[in-house]
Amino acid sequence: MAGIFRKTHQDAHSLARCGVISLGHGEVESPAFMPVGTNGTVKGIYHDTVQDIGYNLILGNTYHLYLRPGIEVLKRFGGLHAFSNWKHNILTDSGGFQVFSLSQFRKISEEGVVFQSHIDGSRHHLTPEKVVDIQQVIGSDILMCLDVCTPPDITYRKAREALEITHAWARRSHDHWSSLEGFDGKLFGIVQGNFYKDLRKESALAISGMDFPGIAIGGLSVGETPEMFSEYLAYTTEFIPAEKPRYVMGIGSPDYILDAVANGIDLFDCVLATRAARNGSVFTDDGMIQMKKAVHEFDQGPLSEGCTCTACTSYSRAYVRHLFKAQEMLGGMLATEHNLTYLYRLMQDVRQAIREDRFGEFKRSYLARYYGT
Amino acid sequence: MAGIFRKTHQDAHSLARCGVISLGHGEVESPAFMPVGTNGTVKGIYHDTVQDIGYNLILGNTYHLYLRPGIEVLKRFGGLHAFSNWKHNILTDSGGFQVFSLSQFRKISEEGVVFQSHIDGSRHHLTPEKVVDIQQVIGSDILMCLDVCTPPDITYRKAREALEITHAWARRSHDHWSSLEGFDGKLFGIVQGNFYKDLRKESALAISGMDFPGIAIGGLSVGETPEMFSEYLAYTTEFIPAEKPRYVMGIGSPDYILDAVANGIDLFDCVLATRAARNGSVFTDDGMIQMKKAVHEFDQGPLSEGCTCTACTSYSRAYVRHLFKAQEMLGGMLATEHNLTYLYRLMQDVRQAIREDRFGEFKRSYLARYYGT
Repeated sequence: MAGIFRKTHQDAHSLARCGVISLGHGEVESPAFMPVGTNGTVKGIYHDTVQDIGYNLILGNTYHLYLRPGIEVLKRFGGLHAFSNWKHNILTDSGGFQVFSLSQFRKISEEGVVFQSHIDGSRHHLTPEKVVDIQQVIGSDILMCLDVCTPPDITYRKAREALEITHAWARRSHDHWSSLEGFDGKLFGIVQGNFYKDLRKESALAISGMDFPGIAIGGLSVGETPEMFSEYLAYTTEFIPAEKPRYVMGIGSPDYILDAVANGIDLFDCVLATRAARNGSVFTDDGMIQMKKAVHEFDQGPLSEGCTCTACTSYSRAYVRHLFKAQEMLGGMLATEHNLTYLYRLMQDVRQAIREDRFGEFKRSYLARYYGT
Repeated sequence: MAGIFRKTHQDAHSLARCGVISLGHGEVESPAFMPVGTNGTVKGIYHDTVQDIGYNLILGNTYHLYLRPGIEVLKRFGGLHAFSNWKHNILTDSGGFQVFSLSQFRKISEEGVVFQSHIDGSRHHLTPEKVVDIQQVIGSDILMCLDVCTPPDITYRKAREALEITHAWARRSHDHWSSLEGFDGKLFGIVQGNFYKDLRKESALAISGMDFPGIAIGGLSVGETPEMFSEYLAYTTEFIPAEKPRYVMGIGSPDYILDAVANGIDLFDCVLATRAARNGSVFTDDGMIQMKKAVHEFDQGPLSEGCTCTACTSYSRAYVRHLFKAQEMLGGMLATEHNLTYLYRLMQDVRQAIREDRFGEFKRSYLARYYGT
């Protein structure tokens, strides 16, 4: 199988790299941040605006879409692209993380997982094969294997058990996906192993050996310190082949993104940009600022100097603050567009810095201002 | 003083009329519906989209804007146009209605009204003169006199008392407004009189005699039956001079709008279009439909056949239903754009029917379908 990742430049002084990922709905320049569209919509923003910012790969949540609108609706519409009128690429997670974080009840066996819907309490049974089938109905351009997610503080024995099930499920997912006909979606394996280095290494090698088109690193950014995140990310990535696209799940703040890029990661996603936006927090070069604060009451300046979004080109900080104080929807709408525009622009700058072999310098100077040091 | 209203066509068979209202930020074709932007934003939609639909006159609420962002912020920005980046006309109400419907406490005297903010309980004193001054700071193209709003079930004596204060305040508002220099906003008087015909007549004649650029009819659409609304609207309008623009406050459903137009009304506003939208109710030629209903689950059709809004041109009823079921912001955003587009288009059709002397026929055939009869 031909690879879907083509490296276009390797930074001379770090593991950071530029590349192109070829998917069913077009090529994606990497490193790339993916906005999260849980229910087939990125919260608070039109799909056309997401596209106009420049994004051509967004994420959907299999767990949510499976429960609502449900597989029958998605089948009738020929998949999520047509249903949600999104013309570019979609990555879907496996639902594993949501089964563990959202459902009221779950029981894992070698066979699969039984869980209760957080919406109506209905009981559902998912197997690795069924999760691949659901993502085929969704029409995902990148799909993920069902895995067992574990919190950061479990014992070695429990972490190993989870790992073994994750690997068995990865094999079954891959076998089932390989047998599908007429489906262009690319299946990524997920490395787990909690915060045990030998398990991380074992998992990275096992998943890397299964001929997936891409590899995801799961189980990070789950509450550990930034130092642990950084250490385990670097350690795990060592054992993942450079010719495949690498994806770290659940990171989306500039500092974590830059850390991931420095370790040769190509893809990341997070709800932070959109969730924080709805709460009034916006990205700036000087760190995140909270728009509800009184300091912005008379401020005629833009959210972030030089930003090209609607908020920054048409409105003042004072107006955006007023919208949040008055709990107006437009506040969340403007801040969402801003945060997604900001991150897109950051990734453009990151790719440019890599191409010019100055990523390390870019990262240092960006973070010095971001942290105010 | 030259009038701001120019009649361009009188329907041959009814009181319905087309006209042009000349205001500080451009000419408005009437009859016209005005979207409500309580806090300096029409809820759930970008100003650019409101403008692109075709609207060039929106409403702001003086009570809300006075409390938040407050007069000092609006002064610093040179008014609401600049603060909210809305380039067309703004009508502001006087805050009278909100003082009576929202504030936790109020006390009316001949001098003015004392009330407690619904936001923080702070106490404020408004006089007719101060309300004009606030609207000058806002930079309103049409401003309204402070009036005393009464519920539909009060005694004749109370209705007369309220009326007399309303008239005294109207005279003081007019005197104060006339003395302002360098301000282009047009002050409208408000007819009250509750549901007593002699008071309605008295009020219409008194307010019409005060040389306001336009006349509003208040105290209707406050819970009375459609028949009473219709009867009192027709009766009141008789006594308002035809050369001034006439505005009925607080109506926004197609049937009430058509009734008002038939009585020679030129302007109306209501939160219905935008509030109902956020709750999943959308206008169609067959009446309002509730998008959360199961009947739409697999419906591939648009919200309303022939509508040019984003929802109708890019999405299915099934997708919009899904957004509302999943409580996604985009549902309210799309439905808001739809409802405002629908009403704008309806008013275009109304004006065309008037110009062709077939408004009565248009109204009958529209309502037959709207009511499903």
